[in-house]
Amino acid sequence: MESTFTINGRIWLEKDGEKVLGHGRVELLERIHNSGSIRQAALQMKMSYKQAWDIIKHMNTHFSSPVVIPQRGGKGGGSALVTENGLNIISEFHQLQEKLKKFLEVNSVNIAY
Amino acid sequence: MESTFTINGRIWLEKDGEKVLGHGRVELLERIHNSGSIRQAALQMKMSYKQAWDIIKHMNTHFSSPVVIPQRGGKGGGSALVTENGLNIISEFHQLQEKLKKFLEVNSVNIAY
Repeated sequence: MESTFTINGRIWLEKDGEKVLGHGRVELLERIHNSGSIRQAALQMKMSYKQAWDIIKHMNTHFSSPVVIPQRGGKGGGSALVTENGLNIISEFHQLQEKLKKFLEVNSVNIAY
Repeated sequence: MESTFTINGRIWLEKDGEKVLGHGRVELLERIHNSGSIRQAALQMKMSYKQAWDIIKHMNTHFSSPVVIPQRGGKGGGSALVTENGLNIISEFHQLQEKLKKFLEVNSVNIAY
């Protein structure tokens, strides 16, 4: 009997062996960028504001310059800005994901296991 | 400030969108092969016999032929054999992991984020 398997995979960025950025964090950054709000982005991803903020602090510390800058004040509790560095990182990660996708396609196994 | 990031990643085999084999399952198969015992392998991986056996049943069902054959009886509650198909799958997975490793090395980012 012939079986068809697909290889799937996931990548993430590490610094000194510690995970700094994966697809979940990229999604968070994108949602902050689109909504202009950490609170909104957290809500959309079903995480608490604190969880989102802890992740942002971790990224802001580990990248050479901050990826998100909170803008205090204003109605609704303040907005937030994804920096140019943050946008570059999002873009880089998507490029890596595209490369991984091609790698997985090329290496997918179509054999009788 | 220059930051050095490494890309890390993980791959797994899927069938009809369902995960069938990843590095944990390969480790389980290898430990069964080396010890000749599902119970021993489960113990080494800090899982219950039932957990290990459920995983094996899942693999045996999803691959075209079984990967592990339990051999009932004998002292210590019966031994188990990793089939030729199982050994081929282990080998194939390691080859894929080697390819992934090279992919990650080639694409690792060494840039100022």
